[in-house]
Formats: sequence, C-alpha cells, structure tokens
Amino acid sequence: MKKMFLSLLLLSSLTASAQFGAPRQNPIVPSVVADVVEDFKPATTNQGGKQYPMVNSQRMVRAQISAPKATFVGLDIAGKIYEMTKDENGVWTGTSEPQDEGFHYYQLNIDGASVPDPGSKYFYGASRWGSGIDVPAADEDFYTVKNVPQGSVNEVYYWSTVTEKMRHGYIYLPNEYYKNPNKKFPVLYLQHGMGENETGWSAQGKTGIIMDNLIADGKAVPFIIFMDNGLDVRRPGVSQGGFGGFGGQGGPRRGGFFNAFQDVLIKDIIPMVEKNYRVIADTEHRAMAGLSMGGMQTHGITLANPTTFAYVGMFSGGTFNTEELKDAADFKKTNKVLFMSAGGKEMRMAEGENSVGKAAENLKAIGINAHSYVSPGTAHEWQTWRRSLYQFAQLIFKK
Amino acid sequence: MKKMFLSLLLLSSLTASAQFGAPRQNPIVPSVVADVVEDFKPATTNQGGKQYPMVNSQRMVRAQISAPKATFVGLDIAGKIYEMTKDENGVWTGTSEPQDEGFHYYQLNIDGASVPDPGSKYFYGASRWGSGIDVPAADEDFYTVKNVPQGSVNEVYYWSTVTEKMRHGYIYLPNEYYKNPNKKFPVLYLQHGMGENETGWSAQGKTGIIMDNLIADGKAVPFIIFMDNGLDVRRPGVSQGGFGGFGGQGGPRRGGFFNAFQDVLIKDIIPMVEKNYRVIADTEHRAMAGLSMGGMQTHGITLANPTTFAYVGMFSGGTFNTEELKDAADFKKTNKVLFMSAGGKEMRMAEGENSVGKAAENLKAIGINAHSYVSPGTAHEWQTWRRSLYQFAQLIFKK
Repeated sequence: MKKMFLSLLLLSSLTASAQFGAPRQNPIVPSVVADVVEDFKPATTNQGGKQYPMVNSQRMVRAQISAPKATFVGLDIAGKIYEMTKDENGVWTGTSEPQDEGFHYYQLNIDGASVPDPGSKYFYGASRWGSGIDVPAADEDFYTVKNVPQGSVNEVYYWSTVTEKMRHGYIYLPNEYYKNPNKKFPVLYLQHGMGENETGWSAQGKTGIIMDNLIADGKAVPFIIFMDNGLDVRRPGVSQGGFGGFGGQGGPRRGGFFNAFQDVLIKDIIPMVEKNYRVIADTEHRAMAGLSMGGMQTHGITLANPTTFAYVGMFSGGTFNTEELKDAADFKKTNKVLFMSAGGKEMRMAEGENSVGKAAENLKAIGINAHSYVSPGTAHEWQTWRRSLYQFAQLIFKK
Repeated sequence: MKKMFLSLLLLSSLTASAQFGAPRQNPIVPSVVADVVEDFKPATTNQGGKQYPMVNSQRMVRAQISAPKATFVGLDIAGKIYEMTKDENGVWTGTSEPQDEGFHYYQLNIDGASVPDPGSKYFYGASRWGSGIDVPAADEDFYTVKNVPQGSVNEVYYWSTVTEKMRHGYIYLPNEYYKNPNKKFPVLYLQHGMGENETGWSAQGKTGIIMDNLIADGKAVPFIIFMDNGLDVRRPGVSQGGFGGFGGQGGPRRGGFFNAFQDVLIKDIIPMVEKNYRVIADTEHRAMAGLSMGGMQTHGITLANPTTFAYVGMFSGGTFNTEELKDAADFKKTNKVLFMSAGGKEMRMAEGENSVGKAAENLKAIGINAHSYVSPGTAHEWQTWRRSLYQFAQLIFKK
C-alpha cells in the first residue's frame, strides 16, 4: 500500500494538480495570442453578474482584472502562470492554453501575491478556499440542475467522542426521503481528497445534482450520502501524524490521521447517521468510497473493517491487489461491488496501461465483483471524480 | 414608504456599509501603530490553518500578505483603506482602528486591484463573494456551535413557475423535524439584504446555530426557516426594474423586482415548502422577516397579502407607521407580532432617537402587538441582524 501512495504522489505532480498544495511557484509563460477563437463566454463558476473569467470553445480560459498600479499580473492555472497584459485603463487580460474538460482550481498572481480572482466563486481545494473554473464538457448534462424531483444536501453538526469536539459534514437525502416518511435508505460514506474538505463533493463534485438526475432517470436507487472531513480528525493529545498508518493494519505510525478518521467514521459518523436518519443499518446497505486520499482511506478502512461495508469505491485512489485480499475471507464474503477508477491522463494510463482495468481483471479471477472505469481525457481532477460517482452510483445497493 | 427607503440609503452610506456595493474608492489612511495591544489571535472566520487576519482585544484587525513586487497594499475595511507596510521578505502587514463587534466584509487592495484576502473564508455580500471577518462579541455565546440537539440547514433547488427556471434556497429544519416524523411545524420566511443572497442568513447570520441554541434552551419553539434569494427574481420578458414598486401597492413601476419576489414567494416558495415539508400550512403558523431590503420586502409583501402571515419582522428595514395600518383591518386582525429592530449606531439611533421604539409605541396605541429592539453598539451589519433574529425567534409561534 505504501507503494500505491507513492504512485499517487507522483501522479499528482505529473498532472500539475494543485491538490497537494505545494508552495512551489509555477513557471511563467506568455499569454496565448495565436489561433484563439473569440467566442469566450463567462464561466458557469463565476460570481453572479461577473463577466470574467471566460472560456471559449477551445477550452481556453481568459482572465481579467483591474490593477492600475501593478507591474505583473498572471493567471495561475494547471501548473503555469500566464503573463497577462495591461491596457491603457490599468485592466489586465490574459488567456491560457486549452484546459481539460471539467473543474480546475486556479488563482491570480498580482506582483507576487497569490490571490483569488474576484470574478469566480470559491471552492476548497489545494488546502485553501480559492478560485475555481468549470470548463464545459461534452457530457455535462449528467451534472446539470434539472426540474426533476429534488433531494437536498444538508449541513450537519455533530459531537465527536473521538476528537472531543463538534464536527461538521454534509448529508445528501434523496427526494424520496422527504416524500416517503416510512421508508429507510442505504448510505454511502463518500470522502474527498488531500487538501480538500467536506464541502468538495457537493460543490465541485456536484453530488446532489448527479444523484437527483440518476434517480430521476431510474439509473440509481435512492440512497443517502454522508460527506465528512477526512483530514480534520485530530484527537485530544495525539498529534496529527503525517501519512504513516495508511492501510490501517498497524504500521509504525499507527495513531496518525488515517486511524483517527477510521475511528471518527466507525465510532462517531456511522452511529450518528444511523441514529438520526431513516437508514437501513446493516452491512448490505452500507458503502464507502472516496477520491485520491479518500480512496486510500476507503481502501484501508474497508480492509480493516471487512464486514462493515458491502460496496467499495476508489476514485483515483489506487487499486486493491489480489495479494492483500487472498486471505481476507470476511472482506470477500461481504463485498458485493469493488469499483476502481482513474482519469485517462493519470499515471500509468498516460503510458497506455489501464491499471484499474488490470486490477479489476485480477480481482475478478479471485471471485471479487470488481469494476473499473477510466474517465476519458481527464487528469487527477474533479471531472474524473464526478464521472466516477456517476458510474459507481449505478452499481450499488441493487441487490 | 418611499421616504423610508431613502432613509435606508442614507443610513447605509453613513455606516460605511459595503452592502450596497458602490464602486467608490475608500480613503487611504495610515495603519494604526500607537497604543496597539499585542494580543492578536487568528479570526474565527479564517480559512483552516491561516494565521491572518487577526483580531486583538481592542477589536483591531491586522492583515498580512506576501506581495514581494507590490508598491501598495491596503486593508480595506469599514470605509477606510489602511496602508500596510512591507518587510524585507516582501510580506505586508497592517492594522485597522477598532471595529464594531460582529461580522464585517472587507478586502485587500494590491496595487489598485481589489481582491479577497487569501486568509479568510468567503461570504456573499456587497454584491460579491469576498472576505469577511468576525470580531469577537461579548454576547457571541448565542451564535456559537454547541453540543445540543442539532437541526440542519439544507440546500434546496426547486422549479419556479414565475421565473421559469430552477431556483435555489436554504431551509432550516429543527432537530425535532427529524426526531418526530409525525409532527408538523410553523415556517418563517427570512430574507437577506441588498447585495446579499440566499446564503447570507446561514453563513454570516448563523441562523441554524442561533435556532438550535434557542430551541435547546427552551426559548423558542421549534420552527422551520426558509431563506431564498430576494434579488434574483427576473421574470421572462420583464427587465429587473430597479427599486420602483417598493411597497407593492401599485406604483408606477409595478413589475420591478419587488413584485417579482412577491410573486416568487407567494406562488412558488410557500406552495413548494408546504408541499415538500411537514408544515402547518395556515396563517397563524406563517411568519415573514428580513433585514434591510429584506425588511422592506417584508413590509410591502405582508401589507399586500394581509391574511398570509401572522408574524412580521423588519430588521434594519424601516418601520410600519400608523397611517398605513389605520384602514388595514385584515392585517391588524391577522397580525400577532410586529417586530422592528435596528442597530444602535444606525441612522436616527445615533442622534438619540429610537425610531423603532417610537414606531412600536405608536403601533401599540392602535392595537398592534408591536415590539422593538435596538442592538447595542452595532451598525447596519450582521451583528445587528443576528441579535434581531435571536429576539424575534423568541416571540413567534407561541400562541
């Protein structure tokens, strides 16, 4: 599992994801001026009434800001800072190279200060609240708000006996939860990645919208989703111990945040959800999934609690291998679906190796109902995870 | 009513509120250096792990940002831009004069660019998502998260027949809503101010926290709160018509956004809430309140729909006068509580005239159960409205 984690770190730097929040300065490159199609439109992630940033049909991003006294303004996106140019009114404008479909974190650089763009809405990622932009995608229909029966994403505060403080998460309740007050529902516990928090899945991930649309189309059964913070799990008197302990099988740094989140999930979150909401409180109606670090947490926690979750999803979070499941009789008996996905531009995918597909084949050979999915043309970013959720949600709680 | 609106505009500029989002540049003043008590702590509104901005026991705000190549960096708060100073590492620091208790919008100015502070969380106000800071208050206990039975604030999308598009609001459901699936609840419709949106009451206003605490203390009965957007109400084919039509009694600009929001509330929101949630759907269990512009909307809408709401609250939103209620027999018969509040530093308050208290006295004389409240030491800002909600919530649905 340690090897897998290193691969993910590598992958993260390869895809220039801001997710790990490294303080390195991106290289400065000129703004794109040649062969630009002038059909820019305000991004859907803009603040109401704000014209910039814009995106064109080539998926180029154009930013603009007034900074009359500045000597340098840059658009910092996907690992490069595009140098913007100033007009006679002190307004700076710059255009990036084409971006992948979907959501990207970005920021502006004004005379050396990295700041959010006042034109965009703000999202939590790269360990900060900052600018994000949604680049239109051919398949965006599945995460577009429609006039279908609406569930809701609800803010939840609860007391944690593990961390001895109030914690904060979000719960998605499907429309039928409100309509049918006698029905109980299955639950998916869904985790974000490194540098993100409990808001990521509903804001960037568009979880509620994806689920409402899937359920309305009859493609997914109605289920509840709980989204919590997988990093803010400091226990009283225990320092937050780096990445050691991933896998949860008792490595040298047991006591780090992996175990702390496992404790919060098993001892606080699941009992709280099963007490406060109309939930079918058994293994067959309990799933766990996560993206990147959240996928690794899913990996470790479902292995360490082999009879707790019947459905397991890892989105850009590595793979299970046959070695670790060989003697995991309880896990194999309990598991109904094991789903692994990645972006087509991630890691070994880029070299033509479908690691999640290969892992799924190997796992099927030892009797696991394994599924894999590769998101076309996307990297270690939210479009991969929106699509992964869309796929995973159609596979679970159907038996 | 037109007179009242002008007073509110005046009040708004007097208190240097950013609420109306005027593009004027605030004056530049020196950073405070004398008699500063060096007990600064990170603000509670900071992003996780961010040290700046800070607040000290004198309620001074200190901001800091790295901007090595900048020639000017300022802290723009409460109508002044405090000029920050640069150290040898390119890090700029500046300190404001003492601020009022409670929440304030602010921003940084970097070489002429007005940008959010990357250290703070972001809030919607002054017609933009941007920085905000909570200055500790003597009475902050009432809006502090506690381990009491938790309700939740839920995100709601719904189809509007008036605007012919999907709309977005938030609903507060008290803890008992989940615990007692057979019980129905009263509903308060609660509106934000100019330049704000449907997120204001839960984020800046801390509605869910205030209500959970009030209910746990037995000071308020459990009720539902619906918080919607009172500005984004454009109807197809009708331009958003400025401020004309406030009062709703058929002025020359009927068709402006006041009437559009009235239509959305009466035709879309209330029927949707009463259909989708367990609500006591009668006049005696329906309240409307709002702050500033939302208070004026409350004024106009409750007058124009005199048998729809039994409880009415206007927070920094002007007053009812006896003239307009003289012949309003339906309103007088229906109304059980009419609540008017304002900040102690607002408008006539500052000159020693308690306009809301005086209005309440006059209204009592004609048989209205009028209440008034003045928030000590606060202006046209969120601390006034948090306290107003805290007061109003204790008065309603108790008969």
